[in-house]
Amino acid sequence: MNYRNLDRLFNPKNIAMIGASATPVKWGFIVLLNILKEGFKGPVYPVNPKLKTILGVTCYPSLEAIPEPVDLVIITTPAPTVSALIDECGRKGVASLVVITSGFSETGPDGTRMEQEIVAKARGYGIHLVGPNTMGIFSAKSNLHALMPPVVPLHGGLSMFSQSGNVGVQMLYWGNNKGIGFNKFVSSGNEGDLKGEDYLSYFAEDKDTKVILAYLEGLDPDSKLYQVARKVCRKKPVLIFKGGRTKTGGKAAASHSGAMAVSSRVLRAAFRQAGIIELENSQGLIDCAKAFSASPIPKGNRVAILTRGGGWGVITADSCEENGLIVPKLSDTIIERMNKILPPYWSHGNPVDMAAVITSEPYLQCM
Amino acid sequence: MNYRNLDRLFNPKNIAMIGASATPVKWGFIVLLNILKEGFKGPVYPVNPKLKTILGVTCYPSLEAIPEPVDLVIITTPAPTVSALIDECGRKGVASLVVITSGFSETGPDGTRMEQEIVAKARGYGIHLVGPNTMGIFSAKSNLHALMPPVVPLHGGLSMFSQSGNVGVQMLYWGNNKGIGFNKFVSSGNEGDLKGEDYLSYFAEDKDTKVILAYLEGLDPDSKLYQVARKVCRKKPVLIFKGGRTKTGGKAAASHSGAMAVSSRVLRAAFRQAGIIELENSQGLIDCAKAFSASPIPKGNRVAILTRGGGWGVITADSCEENGLIVPKLSDTIIERMNKILPPYWSHGNPVDMAAVITSEPYLQCM
Repeated sequence: MNYRNLDRLFNPKNIAMIGASATPVKWGFIVLLNILKEGFKGPVYPVNPKLKTILGVTCYPSLEAIPEPVDLVIITTPAPTVSALIDECGRKGVASLVVITSGFSETGPDGTRMEQEIVAKARGYGIHLVGPNTMGIFSAKSNLHALMPPVVPLHGGLSMFSQSGNVGVQMLYWGNNKGIGFNKFVSSGNEGDLKGEDYLSYFAEDKDTKVILAYLEGLDPDSKLYQVARKVCRKKPVLIFKGGRTKTGGKAAASHSGAMAVSSRVLRAAFRQAGIIELENSQGLIDCAKAFSASPIPKGNRVAILTRGGGWGVITADSCEENGLIVPKLSDTIIERMNKILPPYWSHGNPVDMAAVITSEPYLQCM
Repeated sequence: MNYRNLDRLFNPKNIAMIGASATPVKWGFIVLLNILKEGFKGPVYPVNPKLKTILGVTCYPSLEAIPEPVDLVIITTPAPTVSALIDECGRKGVASLVVITSGFSETGPDGTRMEQEIVAKARGYGIHLVGPNTMGIFSAKSNLHALMPPVVPLHGGLSMFSQSGNVGVQMLYWGNNKGIGFNKFVSSGNEGDLKGEDYLSYFAEDKDTKVILAYLEGLDPDSKLYQVARKVCRKKPVLIFKGGRTKTGGKAAASHSGAMAVSSRVLRAAFRQAGIIELENSQGLIDCAKAFSASPIPKGNRVAILTRGGGWGVITADSCEENGLIVPKLSDTIIERMNKILPPYWSHGNPVDMAAVITSEPYLQCM
């Protein structure tokens, strides 16, 4: 698969932070703090001409003054300053750039022009640009926590791109609550340069990524996401939760047109055709990710249900049937084997109701 | 509304426990322990001719030997013994009976005959019978924890009947996790005598019950549940989760007939017509209960969304539109009032995106 190599974004050998600040309420301080306190595996170079050190780390007056080539630059300075900084990055040979700064295409035509300019420049220099208007990135392998919120995800096999920083970061928190870890995460922001399909194809080739998650709001009509997803889904589960399915969802307007409803159905069909698993709510995204992390992809659609309480067997069997799975009768051989493990009053059917068997051993034997 | 008064079931002045045991693995010990350790507000009389005391409480050789009239009797002795015990209860003038014992209609024709016999007897004596094959009952007002599992629910405004003990008890545990309390709970078991509609109409008249929950599996064709629900729904929210919607869900058989699919649609339509809110999964039941507990029933279908992060506004607006709610434009008056609270870059629309306002005060002011 033809994809952009994002190794130097997710596993940079070093980081420069332009807009680094000693003022605790500024993003240039908060993001730097998160990077330092989580122990990024490499040098971190704060850039600020007015300071000698921040948080005990030597400050540099400019990108040029840094004594070695730089892989990853993070920018938090105001939008009008970003364009000139990209020229500096170009001269320095920087590989990748995370533009946390907002005030670009999300604010209207002037912002859109500024965004087009910085993207064109970055592409001219061969720099991969995340954002603008992003909450940052995370990478387990490098202990890279270049994020606005102080979230410390567990390390694991999930990789995610999210068009909403808030929603994406919530997934990292929920991952912590549910005991499931992330490998790479990016708040993709306005996706001026790097887009969903770039992250998707990179995650597809990344051996540390087992399951791919995405939160999407908008999709360009010419997006290559489906084409990419169609191939990726054969290798790894791709789970998507789409916000802005309705007109109301996208804008403040409450009106609801037939055209939109159709387009939402088309979108859903396209996801399905591509092999993407679409979730209908945000909690479902992390729950489904947990299920795929814990289990191999099933070989078929036949399910055996093992439960200690009848009600849960009923609920699970309903869910199976409603989602196209088969809950077949157990073979005589299996029933005979279970008879040796379970007391005589077990259900002798599928779902297997172990009834009042409380101890764990028969449960594990049945598995 | 014509309903059976269950005051002496949920708020008995005393309890006798037939089958009380000193053996820790027996239900006659476990249920008694739960009652005693949670501090039921009234005398508890273990009945066991072989023991003088259990857990420090005086034991009686028979129901008759108890020195006062008894409101509630709990039975855990084997199924064949229950019929004769009901005669004893009848002679003693017992008001209500929880038959935890299983081995009745859930086991086949012989069990069904036994169940019919005990129900006919109980009705003859005017005794209200819970079960058989129940996990017990809970009532906040009396600190009554006559339950098999050692769950200690928070006290609150939810009351629930559940045809599955496991599922119902899980709701009590989830209530604890989510900080939401129960007022009354009953695992309704086989519903030989008292049925869903009895609990529903009692909860409807009960001033301590704010929201009614139910987990159902089967419904008799002549069930009065809809008729009762139709009236109750005008007063209090009634939230139902129905297991066994599919053939697979009811039985081990995997086959799926057109007739069943229709009957599931009919059922759903009937719920809707009655005004019952049907949830599609067990977690949804407790989440919805929490929402109704925390908020008054809305007067209309117009929603204003207040959020600190754009993504959550999009997701909430989608949910509103997909569920028939309107997210209207804000009036100029409201926008002007919000302008005085929020920084200039707030969304000026509905959803209200407060953007990077982190402190709580503007949030509360906006509310």
